[in-house]
Amino acid sequence: MTTYTAINLSKRPTGGAITADLFSVVSKEIPSLADGDVLVKQHHMSLDPAMFGWMSPDTNSYIAPVALGDVMRSSGIGEVVASQHPDFTVGERVMGMMGWQEYYLSNGQGLNKVSAPLSDEAVLSVFALPGLTATQGLFNIGKPQTGETIIVTGAAGSVGSIVGQLAKAEGLHVIGVVGSAEKADWIVNELGFDAAINYKSDDLDKQLALHAPNGIDLYFENTGGPIQNFIFERMNAHGRIVVCGLIADYDKQVPTPGPSWLNIIKRRLTIQGFTMPDHFHEVPALLEKLTPYVLAGKIKHRTHVLNGLTAAIEGLNLFYTGENKGKLIVKL
Amino acid sequence: MTTYTAINLSKRPTGGAITADLFSVVSKEIPSLADGDVLVKQHHMSLDPAMFGWMSPDTNSYIAPVALGDVMRSSGIGEVVASQHPDFTVGERVMGMMGWQEYYLSNGQGLNKVSAPLSDEAVLSVFALPGLTATQGLFNIGKPQTGETIIVTGAAGSVGSIVGQLAKAEGLHVIGVVGSAEKADWIVNELGFDAAINYKSDDLDKQLALHAPNGIDLYFENTGGPIQNFIFERMNAHGRIVVCGLIADYDKQVPTPGPSWLNIIKRRLTIQGFTMPDHFHEVPALLEKLTPYVLAGKIKHRTHVLNGLTAAIEGLNLFYTGENKGKLIVKL
Repeated sequence: MTTYTAINLSKRPTGGAITADLFSVVSKEIPSLADGDVLVKQHHMSLDPAMFGWMSPDTNSYIAPVALGDVMRSSGIGEVVASQHPDFTVGERVMGMMGWQEYYLSNGQGLNKVSAPLSDEAVLSVFALPGLTATQGLFNIGKPQTGETIIVTGAAGSVGSIVGQLAKAEGLHVIGVVGSAEKADWIVNELGFDAAINYKSDDLDKQLALHAPNGIDLYFENTGGPIQNFIFERMNAHGRIVVCGLIADYDKQVPTPGPSWLNIIKRRLTIQGFTMPDHFHEVPALLEKLTPYVLAGKIKHRTHVLNGLTAAIEGLNLFYTGENKGKLIVKL
Repeated sequence: MTTYTAINLSKRPTGGAITADLFSVVSKEIPSLADGDVLVKQHHMSLDPAMFGWMSPDTNSYIAPVALGDVMRSSGIGEVVASQHPDFTVGERVMGMMGWQEYYLSNGQGLNKVSAPLSDEAVLSVFALPGLTATQGLFNIGKPQTGETIIVTGAAGSVGSIVGQLAKAEGLHVIGVVGSAEKADWIVNELGFDAAINYKSDDLDKQLALHAPNGIDLYFENTGGPIQNFIFERMNAHGRIVVCGLIADYDKQVPTPGPSWLNIIKRRLTIQGFTMPDHFHEVPALLEKLTPYVLAGKIKHRTHVLNGLTAAIEGLNLFYTGENKGKLIVKL
């Protein structure tokens, strides 16, 4: 086989579901290597909500959007199949921003070896973007204190599930917001969250009162949606809100307004947004922080695997429907 | 004279203008002193937007509301007229939370001597709540950097006018938002702001583009109102928003929603609310920070003086109409 498949971004989404016409599936020739090149055969690639940002045209965003005609951006894990680079040997397992393609040609920059005795799926689910994001957001921005109450939206998602488990390990009272009874069961009975709230319930305020009787000190926001106002109303004085994702708004042409700022003053709240590209230089420190929790068995995960590169396109919509169960990964 | 006038809070406001029926004007007997007491004749008292919070029933607020039937809370400056306290002598000038009354009986706690060679009005306008609030909010929360662009709403107000002048002294590009041509003229030509925008204009976005061509790094919010969304949309990456006041919302039964949180992620913004009661222990450090700017002539102020205690009631509405010119002070 001398060709491989890649998927390029050909149009920008303008709201609503992700459709196949936004992409072009192309066949490319496997390149020959120049001096310093590494060729990687990608085995698993990660689907992340951040992709909606990368596809969007907002030039004020935290990272340059994918140019139209370029391969769609993603992180992945694979195996070196050819190398003219002194640091990489055929057969080594590596991770990097390989994009939506079966083969990835690199000059070695941003390509990291993965030696841990963990499956590709476990690496992409815990030690890649989700775990780094959870660690940065919870510890460096949220500054959790033992005994506090935290609420995590998207709690069965790749980031939220790790945030909640880290917070639990730190001795917080942990409430997760999810979109199904199955996910509620998983986060409480498998992951050890103290309580779960289904955001589709019609008595959100009552459930919040029940599960957060002392109010909320820390709010880790992955989704947005109508529950935002109810949570905001229950924030305690000096509460912190970590804004990591707003999946409920990514497909809207007119985003939902946020809560009135009155409580920001009355409760002296701090609301802070972050994205990982600002913190890539902190990755070694973040991994050092995260690893002991993983080694102690405190961080469970589950993956939702899609098969074949082109499954990525339709797969993105699972973030909107919430139908994915666990970290979305495409197996190539 | 053995009696004096005091004004008690008798009802809580429920939205709309402040009316006389919320208060009871009462006559009280001047008390005789017990051991350790100080009696102060108040000369000038301060009116502040914080009073709307003190009158409101929200028990989650930063400071206990004034109890119904109690004297309305305020800070003021006056003269010791009788003392059985070892630390206070008749004739000394003192400041404290004296309330809406002509005489104030104290055990000395929270009563501070004022020895600076400044008028009562200057002390209440710069070295009391307004200056402390401006210093705390700008430096400790906003963390201004030379060369950045700051926008201050309520820029002709008691806090905003000091924030802008401090920022100017620190080498920032300073834009003030005001509600009249007269105030625009004052902040630009007297206080040295780089630009003024009248929030009543119909081309706010165009004016922001003109005066903040490089976007906004720091947003000091004193008012709320429709300009909030336009400013929010122009925030730069890593911008900071200091939420100090939302006067446009204090008389509303349903507060205005805030902007969508999407830009909080995209631009990695930090929004932080604060109120001074959390920082009273920092007052000495704040005064130390503020004083050199005042001594260097960098901080100008103007006062709007109302005459007689009962003028305070109607005076509060000037915060809503924006008709006050300078720091509101009641002369007793």
